[in-house]
Amino acid sequence: MSSVFGKNLIVTIFGQSHSKAIGVCLDNLPAGFEIDMEDLSDFMKRRSSINKPYSTKRKEKDQVEFLSGLVGNTTCGAPLCAIIYNNDIKPQDYESIKNILRPSHADYTAQMKYKGYQDPTGGGHFSGRMTAPLCIAGAICLQILKSEGIKIHAHIKKIYDVEDISFNPIGNNEDNIKKLMENDFPVIDINKGILMQEQIHKASQNLDSLGGIIECAVYGLPAGIGDPMFDGIENNISKAIFAIPAVKGIEFGNGFSCADLKGSENNDAFYVENNKVLTKTNNHGGILGGISSGMPLIFKVALKATPSIGIEQDSVNLSQMKNEKLRINGRHDPCIVPRAVPCVEAAAAIALLDMFMSFRIWR
Amino acid sequence: MSSVFGKNLIVTIFGQSHSKAIGVCLDNLPAGFEIDMEDLSDFMKRRSSINKPYSTKRKEKDQVEFLSGLVGNTTCGAPLCAIIYNNDIKPQDYESIKNILRPSHADYTAQMKYKGYQDPTGGGHFSGRMTAPLCIAGAICLQILKSEGIKIHAHIKKIYDVEDISFNPIGNNEDNIKKLMENDFPVIDINKGILMQEQIHKASQNLDSLGGIIECAVYGLPAGIGDPMFDGIENNISKAIFAIPAVKGIEFGNGFSCADLKGSENNDAFYVENNKVLTKTNNHGGILGGISSGMPLIFKVALKATPSIGIEQDSVNLSQMKNEKLRINGRHDPCIVPRAVPCVEAAAAIALLDMFMSFRIWR
Amino acid sequence: MSSVFGKNLIVTIFGQSHSKAIGVCLDNLPAGFEIDMEDLSDFMKRRSSINKPYSTKRKEKDQVEFLSGLVGNTTCGAPLCAIIYNNDIKPQDYESIKNILRPSHADYTAQMKYKGYQDPTGGGHFSGRMTAPLCIAGAICLQILKSEGIKIHAHIKKIYDVEDISFNPIGNNEDNIKKLMENDFPVIDINKGILMQEQIHKASQNLDSLGGIIECAVYGLPAGIGDPMFDGIENNISKAIFAIPAVKGIEFGNGFSCADLKGSENNDAFYVENNKVLTKTNNHGGILGGISSGMPLIFKVALKATPSIGIEQDSVNLSQMKNEKLRINGRHDPCIVPRAVPCVEAAAAIALLDMFMSFRIWR
Amino acid sequence: MSSVFGKNLIVTIFGQSHSKAIGVCLDNLPAGFEIDMEDLSDFMKRRSSINKPYSTKRKEKDQVEFLSGLVGNTTCGAPLCAIIYNNDIKPQDYESIKNILRPSHADYTAQMKYKGYQDPTGGGHFSGRMTAPLCIAGAICLQILKSEGIKIHAHIKKIYDVEDISFNPIGNNEDNIKKLMENDFPVIDINKGILMQEQIHKASQNLDSLGGIIECAVYGLPAGIGDPMFDGIENNISKAIFAIPAVKGIEFGNGFSCADLKGSENNDAFYVENNKVLTKTNNHGGILGGISSGMPLIFKVALKATPSIGIEQDSVNLSQMKNEKLRINGRHDPCIVPRAVPCVEAAAAIALLDMFMSFRIWR
Repeated sequence: MSSVFGKNLIVTIFGQSHSKAIGVCLDNLPAGFEIDMEDLSDFMKRRSSINKPYSTKRKEKDQVEFLSGLVGNTTCGAPLCAIIYNNDIKPQDYESIKNILRPSHADYTAQMKYKGYQDPTGGGHFSGRMTAPLCIAGAICLQILKSEGIKIHAHIKKIYDVEDISFNPIGNNEDNIKKLMENDFPVIDINKGILMQEQIHKASQNLDSLGGIIECAVYGLPAGIGDPMFDGIENNISKAIFAIPAVKGIEFGNGFSCADLKGSENNDAFYVENNKVLTKTNNHGGILGGISSGMPLIFKVALKATPSIGIEQDSVNLSQMKNEKLRINGRHDPCIVPRAVPCVEAAAAIALLDMFMSFRIWR
Repeated sequence: MSSVFGKNLIVTIFGQSHSKAIGVCLDNLPAGFEIDMEDLSDFMKRRSSINKPYSTKRKEKDQVEFLSGLVGNTTCGAPLCAIIYNNDIKPQDYESIKNILRPSHADYTAQMKYKGYQDPTGGGHFSGRMTAPLCIAGAICLQILKSEGIKIHAHIKKIYDVEDISFNPIGNNEDNIKKLMENDFPVIDINKGILMQEQIHKASQNLDSLGGIIECAVYGLPAGIGDPMFDGIENNISKAIFAIPAVKGIEFGNGFSCADLKGSENNDAFYVENNKVLTKTNNHGGILGGISSGMPLIFKVALKATPSIGIEQDSVNLSQMKNEKLRINGRHDPCIVPRAVPCVEAAAAIALLDMFMSFRIWR
Repeated sequence: MSSVFGKNLIVTIFGQSHSKAIGVCLDNLPAGFEIDMEDLSDFMKRRSSINKPYSTKRKEKDQVEFLSGLVGNTTCGAPLCAIIYNNDIKPQDYESIKNILRPSHADYTAQMKYKGYQDPTGGGHFSGRMTAPLCIAGAICLQILKSEGIKIHAHIKKIYDVEDISFNPIGNNEDNIKKLMENDFPVIDINKGILMQEQIHKASQNLDSLGGIIECAVYGLPAGIGDPMFDGIENNISKAIFAIPAVKGIEFGNGFSCADLKGSENNDAFYVENNKVLTKTNNHGGILGGISSGMPLIFKVALKATPSIGIEQDSVNLSQMKNEKLRINGRHDPCIVPRAVPCVEAAAAIALLDMFMSFRIWR
Repeated sequence: MSSVFGKNLIVTIFGQSHSKAIGVCLDNLPAGFEIDMEDLSDFMKRRSSINKPYSTKRKEKDQVEFLSGLVGNTTCGAPLCAIIYNNDIKPQDYESIKNILRPSHADYTAQMKYKGYQDPTGGGHFSGRMTAPLCIAGAICLQILKSEGIKIHAHIKKIYDVEDISFNPIGNNEDNIKKLMENDFPVIDINKGILMQEQIHKASQNLDSLGGIIECAVYGLPAGIGDPMFDGIENNISKAIFAIPAVKGIEFGNGFSCADLKGSENNDAFYVENNKVLTKTNNHGGILGGISSGMPLIFKVALKATPSIGIEQDSVNLSQMKNEKLRINGRHDPCIVPRAVPCVEAAAAIALLDMFMSFRIWR
């Protein structure tokens, strides 16, 4: 079930970096939902490398074509399939290094799993390119969630040593979100965004790469979504988020820092306001017992630096089973974090819409 | 699917803190595996509150009874069901506070989900007590994995401000594991364990509680287990681990600290030794592209401080929808982290055995 | 996933014929449903061998014990587990024939699958006894469906050469159902029931056994339940019904006889009555394109004669791999069909409640 | 999960009769399997309407295009997606009858499920055209199964009043299969095939249609595949087979006729030959307890007559909610049975490969 996700909403992602096309199927979308194609296109542009000086030289237009599931732009209840043709392909970039394992890439593990039959060009199915169909699915889920009053926003919390301000965990974030949506670079504080881009540029010039942290917030989620134990919000969002290559950690609410706090400091006191139950703090990140509390759902995701770097690295020639130096010349992002921001929103939206569907059953 | 996990191995957990019994079903275990009942019993004791001065006064013997799935002590291929009767029950502890939400517990979210029909006593199905059947399942999975050469060990990495030493990420941990297994308190460095227990004792005396971090390592995992995208090792271990109440974050390899490193620092160089491919460092934590690399699989889990504290807290009386003070007098652990250590091993074992079964299909 | 069924409602059945207990877990039942324990008990009696002259001499009281999932008699949202202890066990009946394959039983296939580790006593997990937990689950599902206006009734359509009258496929069956519920023997026409019992008695005296056909009808199912292709009503009811040992065929509506009709004869003409769309005939059995049409859902199930017979049979001694005669002396039903009637209702109810839950998502 | 099937092998079908394309994803195919494209093309031709005088005038070339999952013609472990563009589309055929329900079609049930948003042209996702991607998936599964020594063959058992001879249930069918594969019309006895085509032609001239019965046999299946209860071979093949529109019944082995036999007649005696356990008869159709016995797996499928007929029918105008006559002029098959033969093989192959994968886990 490598590339299939969900229980009521089933998302299937297919494609390789250099296959004819990449795409996604969504089974069990509600019939009668009109997809806002301009909004979808805008969402795809946030992930696209085009017009992003800090990103790969591979420039794909990522034109989404719908093969099924729509009448006009409206879902008809049948499984929706949308694809993107791969156009800007340079398999020759990978010819010279085919047998030399790229450190921190999946070359070696793919070899061990698929016994040499994997598609090596551009990382095959392991490529970050697979996040394009993830974003198609996510964009549609985001639109449906939005129509239910649920909004998801992510921004770069940190690149290398530069940190953006955080979302206000308990309250109104309208100003922050407004700023975030106005910025081409997905940060709240535009000045921090400029510093981040400088760091990326510097790393790029040094043939090196950077990682970072993305913060994501969900507003408008009604209390009561999710299940205890294996099917909680944390479980399912994690399962979806780790589909994004480079993610190495996830934390909800105050996350790892909860370990530094006493119960009296970490507990979020309840109070009543306008006949609604709220918490004074939001260390729990909107989830208690796997179930949404009605407070903003907040989580953070750690992404490692792009494994592809131009600096010479120690590696192994697999066909000869001997040590060998490697220098990677393919096209790649010196820092994937900015383009991963919509991917985090997309993965969260897929997981949340699936859980929202379960939530509706007995309402 | 709240309490059901897995694809080939299906684990179903049932029970409430004060129900007649709690238990677990395992469907699709291999036939012919002889369960080591003493080993199972020892594993259950690691989670038990008995003989642990730092844990709850609720003392359950956690005697495991097998209802089905065995002939003698050997699996027969039929679904295995094992239960534990709840004996030491004091529902009256919960009577007085039934309508007053306990901060950071699932009282409120359960109310919103189950509309008042949830079992409130002892936290119902949200209770940490549900980790007992998780440990039954985990103990069996651990035994099966061990028979395949795969071992899982977890220890307390941190409680409050005291840190244990870490597992050696790339190499031999025999000494560390030996020490860990000799200690009643699950740390490698026994002196740090003493300091941790002092911190717990101090918190307990202050009617407060503590959280912490658990580190888990898996040795002997062959390269090639797991899948890209949604069905990787990170995805599935996360999905399982968040079943443990109080977990708020998970990170693999160097985790969140990967965000501070450049690609040239974070990448794990490959090398050949004895015709085997290894990495010089293990920032990737044994997983690349969702698939095991053959290096030790290492992850860390953050647990929040026990929500139940004796200190007076601000809260809400839900039946009257007004603010009200709350003081919790039930039995509870001032720090759940030590008893959560086997639970982390158990959750990881369930996820890994399920993935190991998928791995075997085309071998 | 041998003994796990369902997507939103997950039913897990465990136990062997002679294990300590048999039972079932139901995950994702709605919270707040009060189980009518008397109705449950009555339903279990319909499957029980007690007070049934035509059934096995193994007499189990089938007392249902709830381990979890309830507060009082009301579901609390947590997974429900109910068990029945096996009391009337005579494993010695199976000692003498352990190595000699019983024709048309699963002895040989179990041996090939479980490599000799299967539980042979009483058929182990293959025993018809497993339909007791199926009936617990089914009885609860039937009660929930009934609270939604959906009723399921099955009767014996045929045993050997005696046929009961059929349900009226298009219209009011109140009289038929009233008669059916008044009869201890599950037929509409009591005289045919007497003849059937005579046939069973005769077969029994000849140390032989009989099979038959069960017809099941579902009333009150709203139009729109089910999905096209793999998740239609036919697909899911079939998947559930074949869980009943001895079932060898299933047909919906006019079933196999549709092959004898021209389109002009088989098509069910639509008409409007009281602003409701109905069909003049019901060859489609209430299902078109996998989805309920609002007409009665009707299907028939073929059950083979009980494999256990006292007559000497040709068989194989597996440990010696040589031909050997076999005479079965264990306790068994000369005809399983009467006791399978509630099992058919139960299996249908499980499948339909699961589909009904999916149906509710976007309502 | 309407159009998703399988546990280890996940098959997702998408498309509508008149959507841009139809297609299928297969997740978890083994890496390194070279697809025989000519064989695939030949298989698709068996389902195609081209060169079949008895079939619809809609002539689609059904050219299969692979978007992903292959390197050359060899599977690479990534999800495989294959599509067929719809070319020969005449939506105007459906304009005039849009609101008038076609008897025995899914027009009404789709309306009730999708609330008017379904794609009505050509039956949308309910169209028999969806069996083209089913056949792509099936053809690939058949090739993989064949490489494991497992072969699946189906033929028309009956159309209206003409019956083909049956497969020999216990023995060598090489002659029958040879004849079957030589005939363009999928029968063993070519003379019966001529009579069947005459019946179809006659029905067609009368603006009427016919149904029939297909028999399918699987050879070379090792004993031990499948599970008891919900995951048996009967359960899973049924779930897959009912995905074929028009199927109304399925029976395994002697099926419904088992109800006419006493146990002493129906039981299949075991015997040993060449150190192999066989049965003298095969009423069980190769399945005991849900698990393959090693004898030929045999089942039959009933298909109703094509609902689309040129004869005037009584129906309902849904927008006006009044009775109205209907005459269907679209293109359609007067008898779908011949083209459904490869679909039955395909559906069986998908279910069996998925179960075969489970079977391999502990081998």
